[in-house]
Amino acid sequence: MASPVTVAPAPPAADLTPTLEHTVAQAGAARALAARLVERGLRTVYFVGCGGSYYSTFPAQDLMERHSHGPAAYRMTAGEMIHRGLAGLDESALVVASSHSGATPETLEAVRLAKKAGATVAGIARCADGRTSPLAEEADALFDYPSEVTVTEPKAIHFTQLALAVLEAAGALPDPEGAWRAVAAVPEALTAAKHEVAPLGERVGAQWRDARLVYVLGAGPNFGAANALAACYLQEMNWLHASAVNAGDFFHGPFEIVGQHPVLVLNGEDETRAMGERAVAFAERYYDTWSVLDSKDFTLPGVPAAQRGLISPLAVASAARRLLDFCAAERGHNPAQRRYMYRVDY
Amino acid sequence: MASPVTVAPAPPAADLTPTLEHTVAQAGAARALAARLVERGLRTVYFVGCGGSYYSTFPAQDLMERHSHGPAAYRMTAGEMIHRGLAGLDESALVVASSHSGATPETLEAVRLAKKAGATVAGIARCADGRTSPLAEEADALFDYPSEVTVTEPKAIHFTQLALAVLEAAGALPDPEGAWRAVAAVPEALTAAKHEVAPLGERVGAQWRDARLVYVLGAGPNFGAANALAACYLQEMNWLHASAVNAGDFFHGPFEIVGQHPVLVLNGEDETRAMGERAVAFAERYYDTWSVLDSKDFTLPGVPAAQRGLISPLAVASAARRLLDFCAAERGHNPAQRRYMYRVDY
Repeated sequence: MASPVTVAPAPPAADLTPTLEHTVAQAGAARALAARLVERGLRTVYFVGCGGSYYSTFPAQDLMERHSHGPAAYRMTAGEMIHRGLAGLDESALVVASSHSGATPETLEAVRLAKKAGATVAGIARCADGRTSPLAEEADALFDYPSEVTVTEPKAIHFTQLALAVLEAAGALPDPEGAWRAVAAVPEALTAAKHEVAPLGERVGAQWRDARLVYVLGAGPNFGAANALAACYLQEMNWLHASAVNAGDFFHGPFEIVGQHPVLVLNGEDETRAMGERAVAFAERYYDTWSVLDSKDFTLPGVPAAQRGLISPLAVASAARRLLDFCAAERGHNPAQRRYMYRVDY
Repeated sequence: MASPVTVAPAPPAADLTPTLEHTVAQAGAARALAARLVERGLRTVYFVGCGGSYYSTFPAQDLMERHSHGPAAYRMTAGEMIHRGLAGLDESALVVASSHSGATPETLEAVRLAKKAGATVAGIARCADGRTSPLAEEADALFDYPSEVTVTEPKAIHFTQLALAVLEAAGALPDPEGAWRAVAAVPEALTAAKHEVAPLGERVGAQWRDARLVYVLGAGPNFGAANALAACYLQEMNWLHASAVNAGDFFHGPFEIVGQHPVLVLNGEDETRAMGERAVAFAERYYDTWSVLDSKDFTLPGVPAAQRGLISPLAVASAARRLLDFCAAERGHNPAQRRYMYRVDY
């Protein structure tokens, strides 16, 4: 197959930093909501979305499982919330549901079902120019961002802020002051990471230029970013076949064959890092075409050293999103092109 | 690429029915254990394993989320349990951990960590000829099966039995008598399904004969079987590239491209069925090479009609396992062949 003509990757969005500042400025609203709910007997938190919105829930869910022995937390696609009849979905539940447009049909249906069951709904959606959205109308509280292009980061930040707020209200957050200081540093930290990932972008762009399939590995909170990269950025936006593999399960099947195609490992600095490192050590020894996106390569300015593990899944997700631009440039593909989405009935 | 020589698929294991009978005969032990734990204040259940053992946890986890507002339930790979520092892992927790050999290093490490934290451990492993295993030694209770080849089914059954037992003890199982009657019918029902899936096996065998990548879709409890088929039966045992896609998220990215390769949808009769049906309707209209494994095609003798949704994820998993034999026969691949597993250090 002849390689397409390489073009320069689109630059990072100009509105990145102000959009993230707008997002973290809502930490106080998240804390106030969580305090009210915990006082009223919050028992279960459901993190819900479709596609990229769903994959943005992973760091939040991970935080809850690590720290909460009070409110239980689950994540699922909106489709699954609609169809599964959840025992915990009642007035003691918080549903955090995200949809960029605020109009994704499955997410809206899940939210309406949750409201009918008595749950509190926190919506995460774009909101700009004074316009509202169906999700904003349905939700008890809206956590928003004003951008059409800076989307991955504010969703993941809002989910994470809400998880931190619930943990804090439940008395289960080990170092609340440090955590919120780290969140406040996210706009600068992620802006830096977005630029610092460029050398990797050039490398994987070249590796993926003529690839027919890419495997993306990640563990723990970073498995969400691995899935988003595979499903949203490669399959959907680059028409490149891709598969996400949990780095924690890589040695129980997939490692037999994935190295025949390019492999990318996403490594954060959270507690699950060892699983990614083990996969990297194996790839180094046995595979030809592999790379690693490692948050240790990011400066994360303003993030206290002890909080890098908290912030790294956000940085990994943000940097992984940036790789799509390099991939699209190398493959000469327009990431906005669609065969079916919004074009046919489904 | 020249097609390999087709050989006849290996027949279903001769020990299938007695192995399943041995497995469901332990329902009473599961119920006794669950009753003790719930009385002692069980708060959290963790379903844990690696590879196929992990994927066997999905139906159990799904049951718990649907029905329990008491004990919370999570599933994760053993690697993740080791590395994540879970807040609920204390003397109020039950860890259900599975390893066929009873010697998987990550699973053993997870179990030792759980025991140290005070949790009760139920092990699921092969046990035969009076031999024991490290998992059997470590576990507070062992749920076993005697076969070297009938492995997928007894693991999934044991996980499911334990979930049902906890729900029953917590007073959260809607129709315990019906559920246990259905479980008792599983040996006959799954044996029938194993044979009834043969026409599909021939069909997908032919479709996958020269395939370079296969996509497997499933939703809810069937997403575990989709992952097991992709990772264990295709990637590991057939050296065929594969990717599991959550049918509930198919329309939020993957559907743009997956139809360029063969697609298989796994459909059960649980509440999530609508998501799989929607994917099938789309594939029918837009894709060339696709198939559906539908539990409605199985007779499931002895299973009360109202309980087919409970049993269908087990039948889907069992039938999906059978497809590997047809795939291996068509591709002329020996499913026991390994490049790395147990052969190199990792």
